Amino acid sequence: MSVLIKNSVIITQNDKREIIEGDIYIEGGVIVEIGKISTEADFVIKDKLIMPGLINMHTHVPMVLLRGYGDDLPLDEWLTTRIWPAEAKLKKEYIEAGTKLAFLEMISTGTTACNDMYFFEDTIARVAREMGMRCYAGFSILDFDTPEMKKDMLIPESEKFIKKWQNDELITPVIAPHATYTCSPETLEEVKEIQNKYDVFVHIHCSETRKEVYDIMNRYGARPLEQIDKHGLLGDKTILAHCGWITKEEVKKIAERGGAVVHNPVSNMKLATGGYTPLPELFEAGAVVTLGTDGAASNNKLDMFETMKFASLIHKHHRWDAQVVNAQETIDMATINAAEFLGLNAGSIEEGKIADIIALDMKSPNLQPRNNLISHIVYAASGMNVSDVIINGRIVMFDREFLGIDIDRIYEDAEKAKEEIIAE
Amino acid sequence: MSVLIKNSVIITQNDKREIIEGDIYIEGGVIVEIGKISTEADFVIKDKLIMPGLINMHTHVPMVLLRGYGDDLPLDEWLTTRIWPAEAKLKKEYIEAGTKLAFLEMISTGTTACNDMYFFEDTIARVAREMGMRCYAGFSILDFDTPEMKKDMLIPESEKFIKKWQNDELITPVIAPHATYTCSPETLEEVKEIQNKYDVFVHIHCSETRKEVYDIMNRYGARPLEQIDKHGLLGDKTILAHCGWITKEEVKKIAERGGAVVHNPVSNMKLATGGYTPLPELFEAGAVVTLGTDGAASNNKLDMFETMKFASLIHKHHRWDAQVVNAQETIDMATINAAEFLGLNAGSIEEGKIADIIALDMKSPNLQPRNNLISHIVYAASGMNVSDVIINGRIVMFDREFLGIDIDRIYEDAEKAKEEIIAE
Repeated sequence: MSVLIKNSVIITQNDKREIIEGDIYIEGGVIVEIGKISTEADFVIKDKLIMPGLINMHTHVPMVLLRGYGDDLPLDEWLTTRIWPAEAKLKKEYIEAGTKLAFLEMISTGTTACNDMYFFEDTIARVAREMGMRCYAGFSILDFDTPEMKKDMLIPESEKFIKKWQNDELITPVIAPHATYTCSPETLEEVKEIQNKYDVFVHIHCSETRKEVYDIMNRYGARPLEQIDKHGLLGDKTILAHCGWITKEEVKKIAERGGAVVHNPVSNMKLATGGYTPLPELFEAGAVVTLGTDGAASNNKLDMFETMKFASLIHKHHRWDAQVVNAQETIDMATINAAEFLGLNAGSIEEGKIADIIALDMKSPNLQPRNNLISHIVYAASGMNVSDVIINGRIVMFDREFLGIDIDRIYEDAEKAKEEIIAE
Repeated sequence: MSVLIKNSVIITQNDKREIIEGDIYIEGGVIVEIGKISTEADFVIKDKLIMPGLINMHTHVPMVLLRGYGDDLPLDEWLTTRIWPAEAKLKKEYIEAGTKLAFLEMISTGTTACNDMYFFEDTIARVAREMGMRCYAGFSILDFDTPEMKKDMLIPESEKFIKKWQNDELITPVIAPHATYTCSPETLEEVKEIQNKYDVFVHIHCSETRKEVYDIMNRYGARPLEQIDKHGLLGDKTILAHCGWITKEEVKKIAERGGAVVHNPVSNMKLATGGYTPLPELFEAGAVVTLGTDGAASNNKLDMFETMKFASLIHKHHRWDAQVVNAQETIDMATINAAEFLGLNAGSIEEGKIADIIALDMKSPNLQPRNNLISHIVYAASGMNVSDVIINGRIVMFDREFLGIDIDRIYEDAEKAKEEIIAE
């Protein structure tokens, strides 16, 4: 497939953070040329604002089925009376329905890659493949049986999962020990062995709530990050979701080891986890900071544009300083920071890079008049301004239409799945 | 004009907060019937989610021209180096261009009424009339010359303005003393005389920043709210924008006097004003609380759906309590609370009410599957899910199309106006 993007403004996110005007020619999955181009192509996109696709670094994709189910509840009650009983009823077919809906939402709002963690991850990977979505698929490891399998099967099955997907163009298998409060030291050691063997990313929740920090200190005499580190899991392939309650020492340690923090401001605010992922200190220390939506059950959407705005504003307000977490730093978190960390040759628009690209229709009242475009992206845009999405060089959404996807069927299946899992 | 809404789910916002299924027939500006209806009508809207239009209680409409101009700056530098120099160049034709763009954005994202405060308010009122927007138009009073006129003209001109618009169906003239730091005691007394004479609403900034509170205490020995009260301006026709730094005593006083607070969470967070409009305490005291976007220069959009989400989440996070400012309380602030305060016979969908109504297309990934609809509206919807807008019984947007409005012309004029006012 070839794509020609004509007569557009391009937010390159290259090293100089240039914004240029021109055309882009894409073929064989990569950006072949940027400039004035008059080649023919299978698809032509015109007169748009072009930028790298957004990377959502912390998701639980199928939880979209539980959107709006059990809001405004304290975290404990939310988990024990709503989420866990519903999740216990999950089956492969419901996962498939939820995953399709979630990817539809992500792609249509400009997300071209996500880093997931859930059950039935093989199904999620398969659906991503079918829909053309780039997915870092995290096989969840816990000390409990999951809706999919007995706990003793998790480690051996994760290994099969990694072998199955490790050479795929769109899917990257990840091992995802859920958290230090759900994985024993022995389990973390087993995960470490898998990581040593396959050199995969490790995706783990870390210091989401103050309660978690105190519980882990009481149980192990170590804070969650230290506990992760003790078992060899803190390194430059570690993805730490939340870090809302980390210390300055922990900030330094994360930066030294090269792990990535995923900030999930909307979910943290909605679940009232308190604490503030210390973005200014993480930036200062040179740590990798990225953004995520978390699952739609606690967000309640999967729009990374909204997440960018929340990520910038929450810290300005907290610090009484309108200059912190500025627009450029925010868009960097959602694009190039994540791509570089993942070793994904995307996240910016440059010749030779993989074409994970989105187009926005600027002819929308919220994007007029044209002032600072980076500001418009972070503070004024909505995911619904996205008109076209290219993943791995392939057009997935064209002029807001999904090619070859029966959307009504996806809505019906998701509705049916939801009815099954939240039936009284 | 008659409108028939068929086969829809209706969030009534009536006293029982019922959500019902059925049809709505609108004629002569009002909701004539709700039920199963098969009358013919000029316009038919089908299979939508129907709710009262949103009411944006604090705006500076033409500032949309300055969207993205001077972000990430400290408040003082933002005002002195960016906003004020640009505003000094304002002319009637630029105001007209900005106002058209702002109303386009508001209407297309589901806002059916706004309470504004700016210069050239007569132009704003005229554009609102032309575009079919309901506007509480606040004639700004300050102790300085404005871009429109000398300061001595403001009070007499405000009186002419009130007389001109006081019997309009869509426009309600409001007097808007800017703040206690820009209006002397004498000016506030003059405003009070106008209010006594015409019984108009008073719209004023109050306790937006901590600096403002200290400055006013130093100058007058009174906090801003007390200063407003001293000059007779705190009553049941007073609209207090922000109140981010008010005390528990002030909460009680506002509730006793029947004034309305406008919470502007996005603008407060973006400008890093610190403080938290104390919503739980205001609710507890029985005060009227409403929501606003503030101007687009500090938001940077005019989407009241986004504002609802921020309004709920900021307090949950601040209080470590996911239960505060719940979805129902939030949608109430944006609809019925504001309408009842304004004495506007809208804000809910009931027979005999004025038809200020919006429709959302639920066939969007972010609104699927169907769980709690109030939750979907507050936490998952975007203004861009709005498909149809009815104001005063008249269809203003139909299936996302504006009837009789040249949108490209509005974009061009706004772009030109912006270039003039922010030219170096």
